[in-house]
Amino acid sequence: MTQATAGVDLGGTKIQAVVVSAGDVVGQARHPTPNTNAADVVAEIVASIHSALSDAGIGPSELRAIAIGSPGSVDVATGHVSKARNVPGFIDDVALGPEVSAAFGGTTVIVDNDVRAAVMGEFRQGAGRPFRNFIGVFVGTGVGGGLILEGELRHGAGNAGEIGHTTVKPGGRRCGCLRLGCLEAYAGRQSIEQTARVRLDKGQKTKLFEIMERKGRDRVTSSVIADALDQKDRLTVELVDEAVDALGLALANTQNLLDLEAIIVGGGLGDRLGEPFVRRIEQAMAANLRFPERPPVVLGTELGDLSGAVGATVLIEEWS
Amino acid sequence: MTQATAGVDLGGTKIQAVVVSAGDVVGQARHPTPNTNAADVVAEIVASIHSALSDAGIGPSELRAIAIGSPGSVDVATGHVSKARNVPGFIDDVALGPEVSAAFGGTTVIVDNDVRAAVMGEFRQGAGRPFRNFIGVFVGTGVGGGLILEGELRHGAGNAGEIGHTTVKPGGRRCGCLRLGCLEAYAGRQSIEQTARVRLDKGQKTKLFEIMERKGRDRVTSSVIADALDQKDRLTVELVDEAVDALGLALANTQNLLDLEAIIVGGGLGDRLGEPFVRRIEQAMAANLRFPERPPVVLGTELGDLSGAVGATVLIEEWS
Repeated sequence: MTQATAGVDLGGTKIQAVVVSAGDVVGQARHPTPNTNAADVVAEIVASIHSALSDAGIGPSELRAIAIGSPGSVDVATGHVSKARNVPGFIDDVALGPEVSAAFGGTTVIVDNDVRAAVMGEFRQGAGRPFRNFIGVFVGTGVGGGLILEGELRHGAGNAGEIGHTTVKPGGRRCGCLRLGCLEAYAGRQSIEQTARVRLDKGQKTKLFEIMERKGRDRVTSSVIADALDQKDRLTVELVDEAVDALGLALANTQNLLDLEAIIVGGGLGDRLGEPFVRRIEQAMAANLRFPERPPVVLGTELGDLSGAVGATVLIEEWS
Repeated sequence: MTQATAGVDLGGTKIQAVVVSAGDVVGQARHPTPNTNAADVVAEIVASIHSALSDAGIGPSELRAIAIGSPGSVDVATGHVSKARNVPGFIDDVALGPEVSAAFGGTTVIVDNDVRAAVMGEFRQGAGRPFRNFIGVFVGTGVGGGLILEGELRHGAGNAGEIGHTTVKPGGRRCGCLRLGCLEAYAGRQSIEQTARVRLDKGQKTKLFEIMERKGRDRVTSSVIADALDQKDRLTVELVDEAVDALGLALANTQNLLDLEAIIVGGGLGDRLGEPFVRRIEQAMAANLRFPERPPVVLGTELGDLSGAVGATVLIEEWS
């Protein structure tokens, strides 16, 4: 009897699915997130799970449970999701868990916060394994964070870890959440893209959008940003410098408050820019530490793209 | 047999001692902190304990243990203290625990961080009793903080809770720690005084120093600031506005990260300015919350001046 579980990481750009058996990833699939409506997104999640199952050579009937990490506000008890700005149709309430469960003949589906899933993935099976106290900060479309304190994921009243919406510059750049000066307004991929468009409109030169078009993309993806950086595109360098400074400041504040063992940097942009980006964030953080002689370890993720999907399957274990 | 313990809160301005028996404060004394050297400060701590014992009508031989909350870097294992900028002679290493123990014939003396002691006082015997997750922020000469998470005081690697040195304004006002834009640089009493002196030198009008002299003080104490506020002194109003904004921002960032149940505001300045100050901080915080519809409870201390000294005796119980 196979005891396989499926994990899904729902993002604004892509849906990543994995099938895990006995702790190993035995199948995976990545589908683009439809930019239409909620029904299409749910159908694509179901399709991505089927693709990952095929990849694993496992039939749907052998799935013990499915776990989905979702952005937005997640009602863990009911599997409903809302207020996910980056996923089409997910600002309104979506019965994500029940709908995916129905598509798999009533298989158990749990839904939890995407970032908490990713942190649990790194904690149990990735870069966080040696630590009992760390923050995972995921720099992607937006910026999310999750805290492991004394070996436990911190939930708070349900919303702990929102480092992306801590203020790094009072009165600063407008964030997607409408407040000013959030970390996400400087380090989130979407905000970097929007800021670049505004600067371009104002006459600043940049190769960013040429690179985007050459790569056949309709948005400034992490790899577009990486290529522009490699080409030393001035605006991109400037915007990434600001992202690094903002991350350094927010992480130093976190460290000063919590005195953690480690900081793990991931997410689409974090993973793509990789080690040099992580080292720059470490330096920017060090300058703002209260006790710079005892800095936390700063490192990248081990699971990379799969942190969220693998982490979702970890949550099944934690829940059972 | 009396089972009395003594608790001391060592501050840059005053030494507060209490004697506690069966959970009640049965004696107390407050001595000014000598502005000379470490030996004088240690002698005054010993004298303050004797005063509190007299007040309680208890002899030194009946003391089971003494607990001292100290600023600076505390080596909990040895009772040594260093890097306490605001206490004369305490930047260098001082064998505080051993020296006080010797003065009381070898009685057990424990030394811990002053702010952590104050937080434990509020947690076990003050405003924090209903909560398992809160931050205590103590606005006094400097700004300190301590976290209770899941019913446990967070130590981290020994330095958790340094909210006073989180950055609220990058490139902003110079802090006593030499970095720029720390919360303490805006909300600490000493920094408020220094900023007022600089502004006065630059020609800005203020009654702050007249009030100080009229009250026979050689520094701008919390009650001097309170009086100047009552008289609507413009510079003081401006500086306290900035302190409120800085506290609101740092506490909102903390809340966004940790999703706490409550925030407790104390310290010399916090206690003196009282409820109106606490309510203003609450408002400033609300404006920066990620989820303003579910704010934490914000309230003042219950033990006031005695948080630290009572809290030190609580630490004796926790340690034994």
